[in-house]
Amino acid sequence: MREIDLKATARFFRAGDDFLILTHKRPDGDTLGSGAALCSALRRSGKRAFLLRNPEVTPKYAPFVEPYSTPADYTMTEDTILVAVDAASLGLFPKGFPQRADLCIDHHPSNEGYADCLLLDAERAACGEIILKLIELMHGAPTKEEADLLYVALSTDTGCFRYTNTDASAFASAARLAEYGADVGGLNILLFRTFTRSRMAIEALTSASMRSYFDGKLTVALVTREMIEKAHATQDDMDELPSLPGQVEGTQVSILIKENEAGHSKLSVRSLGGVDVSAICAHFGGGGHRAAAGCELACPPEEALQKVLPVVEEAL
Amino acid sequence: MREIDLKATARFFRAGDDFLILTHKRPDGDTLGSGAALCSALRRSGKRAFLLRNPEVTPKYAPFVEPYSTPADYTMTEDTILVAVDAASLGLFPKGFPQRADLCIDHHPSNEGYADCLLLDAERAACGEIILKLIELMHGAPTKEEADLLYVALSTDTGCFRYTNTDASAFASAARLAEYGADVGGLNILLFRTFTRSRMAIEALTSASMRSYFDGKLTVALVTREMIEKAHATQDDMDELPSLPGQVEGTQVSILIKENEAGHSKLSVRSLGGVDVSAICAHFGGGGHRAAAGCELACPPEEALQKVLPVVEEAL
Repeated sequence: MREIDLKATARFFRAGDDFLILTHKRPDGDTLGSGAALCSALRRSGKRAFLLRNPEVTPKYAPFVEPYSTPADYTMTEDTILVAVDAASLGLFPKGFPQRADLCIDHHPSNEGYADCLLLDAERAACGEIILKLIELMHGAPTKEEADLLYVALSTDTGCFRYTNTDASAFASAARLAEYGADVGGLNILLFRTFTRSRMAIEALTSASMRSYFDGKLTVALVTREMIEKAHATQDDMDELPSLPGQVEGTQVSILIKENEAGHSKLSVRSLGGVDVSAICAHFGGGGHRAAAGCELACPPEEALQKVLPVVEEAL
Repeated sequence: MREIDLKATARFFRAGDDFLILTHKRPDGDTLGSGAALCSALRRSGKRAFLLRNPEVTPKYAPFVEPYSTPADYTMTEDTILVAVDAASLGLFPKGFPQRADLCIDHHPSNEGYADCLLLDAERAACGEIILKLIELMHGAPTKEEADLLYVALSTDTGCFRYTNTDASAFASAARLAEYGADVGGLNILLFRTFTRSRMAIEALTSASMRSYFDGKLTVALVTREMIEKAHATQDDMDELPSLPGQVEGTQVSILIKENEAGHSKLSVRSLGGVDVSAICAHFGGGGHRAAAGCELACPPEEALQKVLPVVEEAL
């Protein structure tokens, strides 16, 4: 593995003619937006370029990547160069994807260096910021459509500039993308102000389930099989539920207890103060980070809650 | 009234020694953050400067403005210069405020030109962007604390960069504020990821109340007295409820029907497509804009809904 810089990456692309871009499994806006924008920029350079069709693209992102995805009759040649974007390890590729890459462009500090060449900028909030710089180097500026794709990448990876990874560079990249014509207002409505019925339903039920303990320092939300079925909620609909109980003011520790299968509870524990929640989860055979950890208990949510309460009380 | 530019505004401040800053009623992050940052910058220039204590400051913003608010023993002198920030008309001042201003700094296109001098930039998403440029002109850069205050102003007026007023300038201002040391991550958690229990409760109840009509093109949410009392919701807690039903995918027209007093319904109608909702509201003696309008009906929510349904059906 060889780490290369932006200029060497631009040379890498100039030297080839046929590129296949790999995105990661459970693809988010950053891997898809980055991959599609890169694909468009390569086509503008006269290259043959495609995104390898990712079987897990959700309806929200499908229109963005469809023009770039491999058609049914696509075939690799022996000259096809594999480029992974936003994928920190080979294990993050969807099933059926090649198990190697000639080049990887990524922003994850945990990148495992599996590709022959690696362009890594672990300081950036989104891989899309790196692709933006690359396209500026290759073409002077992205097209309006590439700017849209990169805005999808940047805005989704920063939670529309709410997450703690949002920094001066993220804002400066967003300013440039807006200058390049990105439809900031329209994309924000689509990405951050439009939700499926089932997502709104499971959020409402989860909010309604919330309970406070220990003078409000602990907030717990329970998501039972019954609630999931009532809301017709998919896994996608529930992706952001673990952050919900932590939004209640005064909360220091929050727990979402989700009944993934009947009689089986998955706990997502978050800390907003100094409490090390990985220690709480370790009590039950789980783990994670100080501020975000998880564990599983072989009992229904109410019973899991009773088991975890004394452990949290001690930690507080 | 005389419109002046940034440089003339800086001269205006250099020429005076004693400033009292006026914020608008129902004060938001923009008027308070802009006013407090300006106050701090004037004090750095050796001036006597205060924010006239605004009686309607909410607990969320109180810590930001307290160091700048007039003390109980404050007295104006005959040399005190009145500076309004983010207030488009005299009618927007809280009760008891002076009914004039020597200078107004504002970003509202609707500014009525009531002040002797006016620094207006109607292209800016937030008044805080104008204050940022002014402080850069006065001092080279804002302090870390002023950057925090201006980030409060900018981020709240753009809904954390989600609203359609978010543009390249807003992002570029945010990038500079982050460079100047604004605590973007911490302020985002406080402003956009922490909610009162009562706000989360009324949102959950409102979400649960939602119903769809006309193949999902109309989404309606009902907020009854009973729900408001159950959630212990204040007016502040309900400020953003009118946007909630419009978040359901496929919605073209959304209506929030709120029972402000028993047997009296206030409708907030929003359009996400081409429907002119001011025409719908005009049917019931209300009005507004094409995309956002309102009206009131002297009946309970369920009855109001039955009355408005055929009018919406025709408009769709």
